Amino acid sequence: MNKALTAITPTRQEDYPEWYQQVIKAAELGENSPVRGCMVIKPWGYGIWENLQKDLDRRIKETGHENAYFPLFIPLSFLEKEAAHVSGFAKECAVVTHHRLEERNGKLIPTGELEEPLIVRPTSETIIGESFSKWVQSYRDLPLLINQWANVVRWEMRTRMFLRTAEFLWQEGHTVHATEACAMKETLLILEMYRDHMEQTLAMPVILGEKPPHERFPGAERTYCLEAMMQDRKALQAGTSHYLGQNFAKGSDIKFLNQDGVQEYAHTTSWGVSTRLIGGVIMSHADDDGMRVPPRLSPKQVIILPVIPKDDQAERVISYCEALAAELKASVSYNGERLSVHVDKRDIRGGEKSWQWIKKGAPIRIEVGPRDIDQEAVMLYRRDKGHKDKLLVKRAELAAMLPGVLEEIQATYFAQAKATMEAHTRDDLRTFDEFKAFFTPKNPDKPEIHGGFVRAAWCEDPETLPLLEELKVTIRCKPLEQRGGTGKCILTGKPATNEYIFAKSY
Amino acid sequence: MNKALTAITPTRQEDYPEWYQQVIKAAELGENSPVRGCMVIKPWGYGIWENLQKDLDRRIKETGHENAYFPLFIPLSFLEKEAAHVSGFAKECAVVTHHRLEERNGKLIPTGELEEPLIVRPTSETIIGESFSKWVQSYRDLPLLINQWANVVRWEMRTRMFLRTAEFLWQEGHTVHATEACAMKETLLILEMYRDHMEQTLAMPVILGEKPPHERFPGAERTYCLEAMMQDRKALQAGTSHYLGQNFAKGSDIKFLNQDGVQEYAHTTSWGVSTRLIGGVIMSHADDDGMRVPPRLSPKQVIILPVIPKDDQAERVISYCEALAAELKASVSYNGERLSVHVDKRDIRGGEKSWQWIKKGAPIRIEVGPRDIDQEAVMLYRRDKGHKDKLLVKRAELAAMLPGVLEEIQATYFAQAKATMEAHTRDDLRTFDEFKAFFTPKNPDKPEIHGGFVRAAWCEDPETLPLLEELKVTIRCKPLEQRGGTGKCILTGKPATNEYIFAKSY
Repeated sequence: MNKALTAITPTRQEDYPEWYQQVIKAAELGENSPVRGCMVIKPWGYGIWENLQKDLDRRIKETGHENAYFPLFIPLSFLEKEAAHVSGFAKECAVVTHHRLEERNGKLIPTGELEEPLIVRPTSETIIGESFSKWVQSYRDLPLLINQWANVVRWEMRTRMFLRTAEFLWQEGHTVHATEACAMKETLLILEMYRDHMEQTLAMPVILGEKPPHERFPGAERTYCLEAMMQDRKALQAGTSHYLGQNFAKGSDIKFLNQDGVQEYAHTTSWGVSTRLIGGVIMSHADDDGMRVPPRLSPKQVIILPVIPKDDQAERVISYCEALAAELKASVSYNGERLSVHVDKRDIRGGEKSWQWIKKGAPIRIEVGPRDIDQEAVMLYRRDKGHKDKLLVKRAELAAMLPGVLEEIQATYFAQAKATMEAHTRDDLRTFDEFKAFFTPKNPDKPEIHGGFVRAAWCEDPETLPLLEELKVTIRCKPLEQRGGTGKCILTGKPATNEYIFAKSY
Repeated sequence: MNKALTAITPTRQEDYPEWYQQVIKAAELGENSPVRGCMVIKPWGYGIWENLQKDLDRRIKETGHENAYFPLFIPLSFLEKEAAHVSGFAKECAVVTHHRLEERNGKLIPTGELEEPLIVRPTSETIIGESFSKWVQSYRDLPLLINQWANVVRWEMRTRMFLRTAEFLWQEGHTVHATEACAMKETLLILEMYRDHMEQTLAMPVILGEKPPHERFPGAERTYCLEAMMQDRKALQAGTSHYLGQNFAKGSDIKFLNQDGVQEYAHTTSWGVSTRLIGGVIMSHADDDGMRVPPRLSPKQVIILPVIPKDDQAERVISYCEALAAELKASVSYNGERLSVHVDKRDIRGGEKSWQWIKKGAPIRIEVGPRDIDQEAVMLYRRDKGHKDKLLVKRAELAAMLPGVLEEIQATYFAQAKATMEAHTRDDLRTFDEFKAFFTPKNPDKPEIHGGFVRAAWCEDPETLPLLEELKVTIRCKPLEQRGGTGKCILTGKPATNEYIFAKSY
């Protein structure tokens, strides 16, 4: 069998879902925990999350928001305050009913039953609304622009690491405004902020749009989203931004005295992205050799690998590598921060070591051996090129060169993801038969990468949805950018004005 | 009545516990939530926590640790793994027993009972140990140096904002080592890291020492701590670092193949500090006019207050202030970061505005009015001086001057806290009668600031503890620095070698 050797088995083509699990394992991004549906985020995965957080937190603050922290627990009665919210959210969640354990016959037994059960927050609109109702009194208190970084829990039945876990980490923005116009402006400002973050930092191209009514956040008036295409051509909802109207303000009694001295209910928004984005980054950029971390997100941008052919050269090579790392850290800035450089001094075989960093997806590897030292040069490997593709670089030129190489890699990942999205987005389908064929795998016996995004007019009739359910296709969004004009609904052939994105999804 | 006016009522002398609550309210640091024992951390309080985190996180990483994230929930059976840990911890905690809510007769009812209840982590030794048992196989995997930033829950009966809340935020370090010596070195390294953080960044002097056996972390072999003195002369345990021996390694099966090819149980440590430190910062530095935030922790270091005597001057003054802020942000570094400057443009009375920032404890306030602009000068106020104490500073000299002023304020707060600690630490008490008198308020009818730290020899006999309980005094620690020699136990008069710190405490 003439098969190229890859570091990850199976390959994407062979079995995409299993490839995803194997990348996470090989790159040491995370692992399953003994707690059903909860994962452990390992240091390399958490380092990516920290960089993502740092970038997004800066953007959140630059747009005038402040961070705060609200309780993990929500009293059961709070969930009953907003009717649509209850039926949408208050189903699968962790319920705390007791506050004590007692030892009986060598076993621990829950005791101390709570008068009112507490819900581990699945999202915090209701508990934050309670504070906002006190913080907002007058139009002078508006806008109120708050963000929270927190863990939340949703008791998902089918979980997949990073993409859908019972507990996940996220940020949730919650803002209060005097008018619908102000709140809508915020909702869309955040959408653009997320786009910049995802495209510039995560190198993940996204389509911005509005969800159809049946996909709205429970209790929202309008839900906007960012949709990315994964390498199996499925859509990933990467973030959402909701205009909540006055629904939650009424539920939580968030009122203000307007400039005419009249009490009004406020208009609120909420918006969030989560550790799911790490799943998106993996599925956007990883290949059959493992993870590829966009340089702006990478916990370590440059890995220095000492090459030690004989034991008696170890000290010389390692001290040279450490001096090089110190010089690079001190003199090179990248993406507004000091370059992150790591010397891997572990006493394991060189080949194994290189492959570990390939699988982890470190953007640049630099090998330094005795001969390189003599030549005053180093050997540079880029994760966006083949693993044998090397470049001899004069040490004197290295520092000046690195930021440019990192930016090239960042740009390459974005361009490749964008090309994938464009190659598999069809806006020329005209009939439901064509639509159906596009979303039907050729070989039904075995998982197959197929389909993509269809951009087509839809008549917006909810009665068309069963047609999509049968194909396991969902309506992702009505893109903000519309081509205009009128067309025919791809599902029914009836006249339709608005274009939507259709796709299979996570 | 000839009473000085203060911004906070009551004063520290009048009613210290109530003063503490009022400072938190006036400074907008936090508030109670409707969830029993859980608090809301408001933006100014959370901003302090973010700066504290940033500083400590840097120190944690510089000492070779990596961050990771482990599940919020711990299966009940995990808590039974380490016997001493169970009896110490598994008492008051939040127990999740159900994973679904169903609507019945308009009420939400918990359903979907879990086979095994889950505990919301009160600390994570057991769940992290589960991962470590997989991560550690060989001596080559050691040391394993992991830290987690997380929320934890302990169902406390009596809560006090920041100091003792049911849910709190913290970092918990968990490390694995091959030998007792390596693990003990780590335990003490962390203690010194915490000291630097608390003294240099929080401006809070601390005493480092070891807890007596009855105060050890449940399951630990040795517990070390940092003790600070609050302004009511009570001790606050500001952080702990534990050498856990092989107890948790045995409970979680953390074994490694040593260099001789023999399986051994590892030695582990754990260590943590929490949002309790914000309570410590308040009780160390706040005064009868409100909070005083050490400059290195302050969310905003410089507040610019436009002074607008007439409406038609507003535009000129505000644009001048904004230009000044931009200049300062761009040109001034403080504590390794860009200076944090805020122009308060709110349309409220100038006096009220100034007092709000005094109560919040911003280190420097700068007033700029039309006359100051004409003179090319600004009026500078420092939170460590009287509120009328002002300094006219040439605008041209301002930028160069600010870092020095901030460092002076930082140093002043530390010196004042240190002076308080020294003034109220007695190492000259010789008899139990003297000891008893020191810890007994003069006026039993009304709360009174009294006592302090007693540094004295103790015979280490557990039977002496009831004597202390009667006085509500606790043994804080055996300081690392001992004066040496032998003495007499302050409680019994028996010969005793080791000196301890005795105090009332939080």
